[in-house]
Amino acid sequence: MSDNGNKPAADKLLFTPGPLTTSPTVKEAMLRDLGSRDSEFIEMVRSIRERLLAIGSVTQAEGYEAIPIQGSGTFGIEAVVSSAIPADGKLLVLVNGAYGQRIVGITERYGISVVARQQPENQPFSVESLAGWLAEDAAITHVAVVHCETSSGVMNPVVRLGAAVKAAGRSYIVDAMSSFGGVPLNVSAAQIDFLISSSNKCIEGVPGFSFVIAERDALAATKGQARTVSLDLFAQWDGLEKSGQFRFTPPTHVLLAFDQALRELEEEGGPAGRAQRYRRNHQTLVAGMRKLGFKEYVPEKFQSWIITTFRYPDDPKFDFNALYENLSDRGMVIYPGKLTEVDCFRIGNIGRIDETDIRTLLEAIGSSLQELGMLS
Amino acid sequence: MSDNGNKPAADKLLFTPGPLTTSPTVKEAMLRDLGSRDSEFIEMVRSIRERLLAIGSVTQAEGYEAIPIQGSGTFGIEAVVSSAIPADGKLLVLVNGAYGQRIVGITERYGISVVARQQPENQPFSVESLAGWLAEDAAITHVAVVHCETSSGVMNPVVRLGAAVKAAGRSYIVDAMSSFGGVPLNVSAAQIDFLISSSNKCIEGVPGFSFVIAERDALAATKGQARTVSLDLFAQWDGLEKSGQFRFTPPTHVLLAFDQALRELEEEGGPAGRAQRYRRNHQTLVAGMRKLGFKEYVPEKFQSWIITTFRYPDDPKFDFNALYENLSDRGMVIYPGKLTEVDCFRIGNIGRIDETDIRTLLEAIGSSLQELGMLS
Repeated sequence: MSDNGNKPAADKLLFTPGPLTTSPTVKEAMLRDLGSRDSEFIEMVRSIRERLLAIGSVTQAEGYEAIPIQGSGTFGIEAVVSSAIPADGKLLVLVNGAYGQRIVGITERYGISVVARQQPENQPFSVESLAGWLAEDAAITHVAVVHCETSSGVMNPVVRLGAAVKAAGRSYIVDAMSSFGGVPLNVSAAQIDFLISSSNKCIEGVPGFSFVIAERDALAATKGQARTVSLDLFAQWDGLEKSGQFRFTPPTHVLLAFDQALRELEEEGGPAGRAQRYRRNHQTLVAGMRKLGFKEYVPEKFQSWIITTFRYPDDPKFDFNALYENLSDRGMVIYPGKLTEVDCFRIGNIGRIDETDIRTLLEAIGSSLQELGMLS
Repeated sequence: MSDNGNKPAADKLLFTPGPLTTSPTVKEAMLRDLGSRDSEFIEMVRSIRERLLAIGSVTQAEGYEAIPIQGSGTFGIEAVVSSAIPADGKLLVLVNGAYGQRIVGITERYGISVVARQQPENQPFSVESLAGWLAEDAAITHVAVVHCETSSGVMNPVVRLGAAVKAAGRSYIVDAMSSFGGVPLNVSAAQIDFLISSSNKCIEGVPGFSFVIAERDALAATKGQARTVSLDLFAQWDGLEKSGQFRFTPPTHVLLAFDQALRELEEEGGPAGRAQRYRRNHQTLVAGMRKLGFKEYVPEKFQSWIITTFRYPDDPKFDFNALYENLSDRGMVIYPGKLTEVDCFRIGNIGRIDETDIRTLLEAIGSSLQELGMLS
C-alpha cells in the first residue's frame, strides 16, 4: 500500500492523547536490531526499569518495582486487575469517564466482584465521598481511579484519595496512563500500590508496551493469583528479576525508542520540566480557542494540561467531521469526543509539540471555521 | 544508559529465532508518527490484514480473516486458547517441545480441560497416533500443534494432521510462530481454523504484535466466549471490521515496519522465495557444522530450515558459554538450547541473513573452537 516506503514523509502533527508526535531522535533509536538476550539489551531494560521509578519519585530501595508489560496501556490495566485482586476481593472503581468504565468492564470479565461509583464526567471525586463508600462496604479490598481521565481531561486528586484509601486499609490502583511523566507525582506520597502507564504518552516514546509501578509487598502478594499467563504481573516481574529478560519476546525497537525518550525527558527536567511545556501548550490553546468562541467542558480548576475537551459550539453550521478533515488536510490531527452526555471534541497538548505548534493549529482552526461560514 | 543514542551502531548479526536481524528499510519505515485513527494508518492496517491472508494462500472471499493482536506471539496463542475453546470444550495438545508445553500451560491457567500427548523432542507426530487419540476421547473439541517447534526445529506435518482432525470433526489450532512466511503453507488445504504467528519471525518485521488467521465461521463461534478483554479475539476482529481501528492503541511504528517487511517478502517471491534463501542458509550451516564435528539433534528428514539444534560435542573442553561470548564479541549471536533431555544449542537461519553471513559465522565458530583448544 503506502508507496513512500522507507522515505520519511512529512507527517501530520498529532494533537491527540497518543500515539503522539515524537522526536526524530526517539524514532532514530529504533534503527537497530538487538537480541532480546543480549547483554546490552538486558542492561537497557534494567536501566529503563530503574529510571521509571525515578519518574515516580521512588526507588527500589524504598520498596518499589517497575514492570513493563507488552501490549497497549489497557494490557497493563488488565494485568493489574487480573493479577492483584484475589478471588474473594472486591474492587471499587471511581468512574468519571470512559477509562474508569473500562476498568469496570475488565473486572467484570473475570467475574471479580466490582462496584462502580459514578461522578459527572467533568467533576473529580472527593475524599469525603470515597471515605463514605469505603466505610459503607467492608467487602471492598481495592480501589481504582484514573489520574487524568483522558476522555475529558479532568484530574482526580490521587494523593488525597490515596490517603482515604489507606486510612481505610485498602489497596490502591491508579491508572496514570495519560499523566505519568507529564504531571509530577510521588508514588509513595500518594500511597499507590499499583500505578499503570504506557510507553506512548507523556514519556513520549512510541506505542508497544505499558508498565506498572508496584509497591513490592503488594506485588509479592499477587503471586499465584493471576488469571492469565501473558498478563501475569508477578511472573513478569519474577522473570525480569531472575534473568533480566522478558518471559516472552519484548518489543526491542520500542524499548530502544523508550530508552531515548526517557533520556529526553530527563534532559527536559523530568516531569516538572515537561509539565511546564505542556502547561504552556494548554494555556495557549485555551486562550486561542476561547477567542474563536469555543468553551471548555471541564471547569478550569479541575482541568489537566494533558488534553482539553471543547464543547461543540451552538452554531448549527459547525460540523466536527468537516473541521477534522480540513485540519487533517493541513497536516494536523485532533481527536473526537468520548463523552456519553455532551457533544464535544478533544485536543491533546502532549507529545513533541510546543506553543508554536499550538498557534499553527489555532490559525488552522480559525481558517477552517471561516470556510465553514462560522466566522465572518 | 547506552550512550550511542540515535547513532546507529554496528549491530550484531542475530542467528536466533527472533527478534531477528531485519533490513535497514524495514527499520527506516518506523521513522514516522502516524495517528492510530488516521486514514493512512487505517488503510495500511487493512492492507496488512489482506496480505497476511495471501501469505497463507487464502482470501477473505474464501472465508478467512486476519486479526493482529498487540503483544508477543504468546499473546496471540493465549488470545486463541482463551477465546476459541468453550467452557465445555477440551483441548488436545500435541507436545514435542517447549512451545507445545506452553499451550498446555496457558490452557490450564484458565481451567479449560486439556490433555497433552507427548512425543520425543526430535520426532514429529504421526497421523495414525492423532487419529487414535481422537477416536479414544470424544470429549476433545479442539486440537493444537506447533508447526515448527522452535525449541528443536522439528517440523510437524500440519497438513496431514489437519486432515485427521477434520475427519474426526474437531477444530484445529496451529502455532505457526516460527514458520509462517518462511515455509509455504495453504491454510485452507491444511484445514486450519486458527493459525497464530508473529511480526518478528519469517516475515522479518520487528517485534510488537502477533496475528491470527482464522476461518470466519470458527471465529464467529467465539463471540462472547473470551475470558479476557485485551485478548478477546472476536472483539478485536469486530472492532477492526467496524471502524478499521484497533480497540486499544496499536504499535503504530511496528506496523509501519511490518508493512514494509511484507513488501520485501512479496518482492522475494513470497514464502516460496524466502524458503529458498532460508533453506540455503540451513544447508550451508549444517554442512559447515558437520565439518567442525557437530551433530544435529533432529534427524534430517524431520528438520526445518528455520532453526537448527546442535548437540554439545563429547569433548570435555567444549564450553557453550565461552563459545557464545566469543561469538558475541565477534558480532554474532547464537541461541542456547531449550530441550529437557539433551545438552544442545541452536542456530537460527531466518531474518535478513544469507549464506555469506552463515559462512562468516562458521569461520568464527571454527576460530572459537581453536581458542577453546578443541581443534588442532
